Amino acid sequence: MKLYIGLVHYPVYNKNDQIIASAITTFDLHDISRLGKTYGAKGFFVITPLADQRKLAERVIRHWLQGYGAKYNPNRTAALELAIISPSIEDSMAEIAGLEGKRPVLISTDASKQERGSITYSDAAALLRSEAVVFLLFGTAWGLSGEVIERSDYTLNPIEGRTGYNHLSVRAATAIILDRLTGSYE
Amino acid sequence: MKLYIGLVHYPVYNKNDQIIASAITTFDLHDISRLGKTYGAKGFFVITPLADQRKLAERVIRHWLQGYGAKYNPNRTAALELAIISPSIEDSMAEIAGLEGKRPVLISTDASKQERGSITYSDAAALLRSEAVVFLLFGTAWGLSGEVIERSDYTLNPIEGRTGYNHLSVRAATAIILDRLTGSYE
Repeated sequence: MKLYIGLVHYPVYNKNDQIIASAITTFDLHDISRLGKTYGAKGFFVITPLADQRKLAERVIRHWLQGYGAKYNPNRTAALELAIISPSIEDSMAEIAGLEGKRPVLISTDASKQERGSITYSDAAALLRSEAVVFLLFGTAWGLSGEVIERSDYTLNPIEGRTGYNHLSVRAATAIILDRLTGSYE
Repeated sequence: MKLYIGLVHYPVYNKNDQIIASAITTFDLHDISRLGKTYGAKGFFVITPLADQRKLAERVIRHWLQGYGAKYNPNRTAALELAIISPSIEDSMAEIAGLEGKRPVLISTDASKQERGSITYSDAAALLRSEAVVFLLFGTAWGLSGEVIERSDYTLNPIEGRTGYNHLSVRAATAIILDRLTGSYE
C-alpha cells in the first residue's frame, strides 16, 4: 500500500467561508502520525506556507525524535518519524513523486458530498490495494478550499453518522477514514 | 440505540503500570462529545474522582453551552449537551439505570486482547441494535485498570491496524470504535 496523508493548513476555510492559513495544533500532529503508523501510511505531510508555523511543527517533532520525548515515550518517536513538514500541496506532491517515481492520485476529504469526482470508500480502498500511489488530504479549520477539491482527482464521500450532525474534528475524521479504507476486523 | 460513552480518568494506568487519576484533556471533551453526537449516543460521561478536575470540565462545558462559546460555535454547544460529569463508573452506571430503567451492559475497551469476556465488533454492534442499554468505557492515559476490565460484562477486541503498532490516542480509538459499531457507508 502506497498511502501518504496530508494535513492541510492552507488553503482552508474559516467559519466565515474565507480562505486562511490555520494554526498548527500539536494534538493533530501526534494523533494523525500515530494513526498513520497504525494503518501503514508511508508518510504524513504537515502542510503550511507559514515559516514560523513550520518551525513550530519541526520543534515539536524534534522534541519527540531526538529530545527528552524520545526517552519519555518511544511510541511517539516511532509515529512522528512519518511526519514531513511541507510548504504546499504542490511541494508535497513533488516529494511523493520523487520518492515513488510516479505522480500520486490526489484524494480530498470533505464534510459535504461533491458533485464532481466523488468516490466511495470501497472504490478508494480498491485503489489503495492497487499499485497506485495515493495522497489523501485532510483540511483543518472549516475544511479544504474549493480550489483544492477542484483540482483533486477524487473527493471521498463524507462521513455520515446516524444523526445528520457532521462536525467532527480532523483528528476523528482521519481516524474513521483510515479505518474505513484500510482497516479490517470481525 | 441506547448507547452511553464513558471517558475514564480513574482507575487507569500510567506508563509505569501504576493506577492513577489522569488529568482532563479538553480536546478529549470536544472530540468525543462531537463523536457521540455524530453517532447518536445518548450521553457522554466524563469520569473523574478529583473535584477540581470535575470543576475544570464543568467550566469548559459551561463556556460552550452558555458562555461566549455558544455564540461562537453552536455546533460545539450541540455536542457538549451530551456531556455529564461524574465522580465514578458506579455513579455513572446508577445514573444510566435511573434514566433507562435498567442496568447497562458494561463494555470496556483495551489495546490488548482479553482472555475473559472478549467480544467482537459484530457481536457488540448486534447488542446495540437490540433493546440493551450499553455503556462503553474508554480509558485515558495508558488504559483502563485491570479491575475495570474484570468487572465489565465484555471487553471489545482491540483495534488492530496493519503494522502491529497500537498506540492510538483515546480520541482516535473512540472515533474508530464508534464507527465500527454504529456507522454505515459504501
